[in-house]
Amino acid sequence: MAAITIFGKGNMGQAIGDVFKQGGNQVSYLGNGDPVKNLGDIVVLAVPYPAAISIAKANPTALVGKIVIDITNPLNFETWDDLVVPADSSAAEQLKQLLPDSKLIKGFNTTFAATLKSRQVGDQQTTVMAASDSNEAKATLEAALKDSGVAFIDAGALKRARELERFGFLQMTLAAKEKIGWTGGFAIEK
Amino acid sequence: MAAITIFGKGNMGQAIGDVFKQGGNQVSYLGNGDPVKNLGDIVVLAVPYPAAISIAKANPTALVGKIVIDITNPLNFETWDDLVVPADSSAAEQLKQLLPDSKLIKGFNTTFAATLKSRQVGDQQTTVMAASDSNEAKATLEAALKDSGVAFIDAGALKRARELERFGFLQMTLAAKEKIGWTGGFAIEK
Repeated sequence: MAAITIFGKGNMGQAIGDVFKQGGNQVSYLGNGDPVKNLGDIVVLAVPYPAAISIAKANPTALVGKIVIDITNPLNFETWDDLVVPADSSAAEQLKQLLPDSKLIKGFNTTFAATLKSRQVGDQQTTVMAASDSNEAKATLEAALKDSGVAFIDAGALKRARELERFGFLQMTLAAKEKIGWTGGFAIEK
Repeated sequence: MAAITIFGKGNMGQAIGDVFKQGGNQVSYLGNGDPVKNLGDIVVLAVPYPAAISIAKANPTALVGKIVIDITNPLNFETWDDLVVPADSSAAEQLKQLLPDSKLIKGFNTTFAATLKSRQVGDQQTTVMAASDSNEAKATLEAALKDSGVAFIDAGALKRARELERFGFLQMTLAAKEKIGWTGGFAIEK
């Protein structure tokens, strides 16, 4: 069991919290402006990319030693044609620069809120792909998801966040164009 | 029915040819060193990225006006940690620069040979995602696949090849690490 603090009470924050609760973890939420204290071992930044950057800049000390999960898809939402992070980087790597003493994980950016809630993408179990330079952090996340109804795949080092974010970006563009549904998307067949 | 010429007789070339044959198209192959003539309306570069570049450089005139399908995943196969194309580009865009008068499509780079053969990723029908700046070329490809047993999704402009190639790269790294099987991978649930 892990103590988990989720920044953000939107669709994604709620869906992730419910998944972790089913996994037997203790979940608390922080909304915009709430005092940042009593953080759990795992902190989920379930907010848009610019807000995640703001949280990282405002709370580097509180986040020291924490497992910090970046779920963002850093789209340029004006053009839907690019990410706002440098092409040779990722939102997760940008956050890692601001939080060098946190254990940063990219995860939950490839699962829509609806597929987290249903635990299914089509006939396939919903899978969280996680990238991090900390194997300990990934093992803790995998354990926290064990009984959650959501599967886990270790996608490699934090650098693989570049691929995960492009994967999430593509999935969102296809859903926005109604080529796939927001209740469907990319399933993972092991 | 389209006339289709496939450069490359490897696993991918054969699997793609069989798919197009089932779709009722006329398929011919060109191997390494074969004279480049009598090309079909659709030309598939079913070869590794460096070979695709060589074919484009050697045959710009023969490929004028053709629908050229780039299926490559331009991995650095020494490190398996990067693509060999610039981060703000893609193999498909590099080829387009060499073949400005061809109708370039990125496609078939997100489907393993085994899932093209089986027409299935898990319980889901195998889907070809295609990116191109030519809507006519995408419509021709979609028509050629109509009765092939393989589904088609228009993934947008050629620029989306950046996402398709990162998607393919991630899928290959997960298969190489046995997190997913080469007979499985990323399915698309519409």
